[in-house]
Amino acid sequence: MTIQTPLSELRFSSEGDSPSIDAAFIAVEVARLLAENRADVVSEFLESQELADIAALIEELERGDDLTVLRLLPLHDQAEMLGYLRPSSQVEIATRIPRRELVALMTAMSHDERADLFKQLDEEAQEAILPAFAKAEREDLRRLAAYEEWTVGSVMTSDYATLKPDMTSTSAIDALRTQAIEAETIYYAYIIDEERALLGVVSLRDLLIARPRQRVSEIMDTEPVWVRADEEQEAAAKTIARYDLLALPVLDNNDRLVGIVTADDAMDVTEEEATEDFYKGSIVQPIEMSLAEATIATLYRARIFWLVLLVFGNIFSGAGIAYFEDTIAAHLALLFFLPLLIASGGNAGTQSATLMVRALATGDVRPADFGRLLSRETVIALALGLTMAVAVSLIGVWRGGPEIALVVALAMVTIVLMGALIGMCLPFIFAKLDRDPAAASGPLVTSIADVLGVLIYFTIAAQLLGL
Amino acid sequence: MTIQTPLSELRFSSEGDSPSIDAAFIAVEVARLLAENRADVVSEFLESQELADIAALIEELERGDDLTVLRLLPLHDQAEMLGYLRPSSQVEIATRIPRRELVALMTAMSHDERADLFKQLDEEAQEAILPAFAKAEREDLRRLAAYEEWTVGSVMTSDYATLKPDMTSTSAIDALRTQAIEAETIYYAYIIDEERALLGVVSLRDLLIARPRQRVSEIMDTEPVWVRADEEQEAAAKTIARYDLLALPVLDNNDRLVGIVTADDAMDVTEEEATEDFYKGSIVQPIEMSLAEATIATLYRARIFWLVLLVFGNIFSGAGIAYFEDTIAAHLALLFFLPLLIASGGNAGTQSATLMVRALATGDVRPADFGRLLSRETVIALALGLTMAVAVSLIGVWRGGPEIALVVALAMVTIVLMGALIGMCLPFIFAKLDRDPAAASGPLVTSIADVLGVLIYFTIAAQLLGL
Repeated sequence: MTIQTPLSELRFSSEGDSPSIDAAFIAVEVARLLAENRADVVSEFLESQELADIAALIEELERGDDLTVLRLLPLHDQAEMLGYLRPSSQVEIATRIPRRELVALMTAMSHDERADLFKQLDEEAQEAILPAFAKAEREDLRRLAAYEEWTVGSVMTSDYATLKPDMTSTSAIDALRTQAIEAETIYYAYIIDEERALLGVVSLRDLLIARPRQRVSEIMDTEPVWVRADEEQEAAAKTIARYDLLALPVLDNNDRLVGIVTADDAMDVTEEEATEDFYKGSIVQPIEMSLAEATIATLYRARIFWLVLLVFGNIFSGAGIAYFEDTIAAHLALLFFLPLLIASGGNAGTQSATLMVRALATGDVRPADFGRLLSRETVIALALGLTMAVAVSLIGVWRGGPEIALVVALAMVTIVLMGALIGMCLPFIFAKLDRDPAAASGPLVTSIADVLGVLIYFTIAAQLLGL
Repeated sequence: MTIQTPLSELRFSSEGDSPSIDAAFIAVEVARLLAENRADVVSEFLESQELADIAALIEELERGDDLTVLRLLPLHDQAEMLGYLRPSSQVEIATRIPRRELVALMTAMSHDERADLFKQLDEEAQEAILPAFAKAEREDLRRLAAYEEWTVGSVMTSDYATLKPDMTSTSAIDALRTQAIEAETIYYAYIIDEERALLGVVSLRDLLIARPRQRVSEIMDTEPVWVRADEEQEAAAKTIARYDLLALPVLDNNDRLVGIVTADDAMDVTEEEATEDFYKGSIVQPIEMSLAEATIATLYRARIFWLVLLVFGNIFSGAGIAYFEDTIAAHLALLFFLPLLIASGGNAGTQSATLMVRALATGDVRPADFGRLLSRETVIALALGLTMAVAVSLIGVWRGGPEIALVVALAMVTIVLMGALIGMCLPFIFAKLDRDPAAASGPLVTSIADVLGVLIYFTIAAQLLGL
């Protein structure tokens, strides 16, 4: 006997990190109800749910059931819910519903989301549906889909609310009321002239506070913040965060208003960038899908490149050691300190690189600060190196006598200084060459510091121990 | 002769990453005008500027000038601008203005920002100003300031808009109009009963679309998403991002509405967490200030801990090498492969740890998935190890003959497998022990893999080369 929980008692918990668990659980129950022809119970359940949660549920349902649940929603909710699905799921559903239904659905979607979906479809599917759209929709789709992946244009939407400058605040609010169903947001409205030049921005809040007969032109902000459509999308996200905006107007190169970026889309951009940044400093190539979904082959490919590449760096270290074989053979005690010295150079370098990459990324430090930072880094690295030298020279005396201790201490100061300066300079050089400073962190710094560490250590040893 | 740019021609550029450069540049001009008693010119300039930019300008001005510029703004703008200043600058200004002026200013600030400022003041200053506030303000300050740093309560604000369920949509809009000056947002309004229990949420958009005589109770969402005040602030940020909200209601443990978290504050939380995550996987302790501002002593302290700690890990590796001195003395060719083998174990481990930490953080993978992931990781690690073994065994034949090549190849497979499994298991173990999995990445994995790598390599060598 299985105990069945009535659907009405199930809820997506807003707590915890895995609403997908709830979704999978609820999906089983929904599938059972659909099999029993009790779509009405499901329909009632959906009414009290958030669209983001319904999207999670649809992701978990079997083919067929997902379309049934989709169609239980009113058209407008279907369109909005679709935007919460993963891109691959959107395409998967789009290819399974009749063309006419898909066009109606996409017409009701917000303009940025339908353009994103359109871009994901293959060329054949694009050409099949495009003629079925109304002319305005067709042109809007073409225009938005034309922007490149990384641009502001690719994340903006064209369904913004507009007002005329000579409207009174009362008639402006009425105008927004009629635009409320179509527009992505009515909390900001954009005032444009016949050429779509941006004259100003007004918030619904300011319209509400204004005297009823006051003109929009008197209330609006005539110097609003804006971005260009062909800038990097991150610029829009940063501007929205800096000025605490709900939406940001986007102008083309002829100063015409072509769209807005909303705060929630900016948040998605910020999250994407954070994931990208996370992988940038690592020795794994970014994988596009979730780790749980990735195949063995995908993971193998994401890892083998760096592993093999780093082996080559280490061959140089090995060759360095081999070059000093005679010195080592004469003083095997030197080997004890080898891992410790080499690692310290790499560690000090990684630290400098971490700090610099972060500071360059946040705009905390500019390439022009290089000189001042270099002298400060030298002082810090010497202080770190000396501290470490004192510590290891004590072990040096114990393991190999005062001569070895002196070699190890001198090597430590030199290696830490060398590592720290490499770690500091590489991100700067990358920034100067207009490459991403993050690419200069971690592995590259460690590899160079390793090789130089071996050479420094054994050169000092060979000199001082007289070989 | 110096060429002076008239202030009216200067603008903060919204482009680029460093508006602070513009601010420093404009600050020079503003200081000159103030010295010439031409505050009216400055005042006119300020009118066309965004408050976030004025805050950046005030950060750059000398003591005295900053207060002069602050006082050129209307009180409400002063209060809002203050929220854009760095916490340390806010405190700095608060301690320099008369108590009565400070209280007026803080009364006009948004509730969350004034509570944050209040918390930053020293106890003496807190006690000096508290009696000067009106009773409601005093209690609100005390309540908000009482939440711990990491909680939802510490980022929420108490100046939200409220409505009654039996209001018509028209009277609700009127009510919001009167709350518009005080409330943080009027785009969402919260419907509560006498006990402050949350009955529903309604958007201004829905109120505008509704029929004039329709009741709020018919329009509102009666099952809104919410969070608890004592949850982690990240939970609020995640919920806002998941459901694309402008604001999220916060309930106490008695289900009473105590505040809201707005989307822009959620964005700040997300950014803070990203910076924290960045440092978590690194071997630098987080520094609280900008790198450019940090003193040599601060940076020394942030780095020496990890450097010294990692030396201890490497002492074990050194001891491992020392233990096998006889094997090494008999086969010095083994040394060539030492850096390469050791590093490969650490690298494979770092890769596994990176993938796991990220997947656990995003909720992609749950501790329950351990078994399935372990067997998959074993297959991947063997594939990686075999590829690497083939590559190095060719070098092995060239450098030391077939026997050395066999030792190196066997060691490579074993070391990569060992490193990958350690890298995978440590974050899981940390997660199980309710510790942050990120603490198990990078340095810890590398240290363990290094020591084991030395032991594995020379054990295999000693066995196969018959010593």
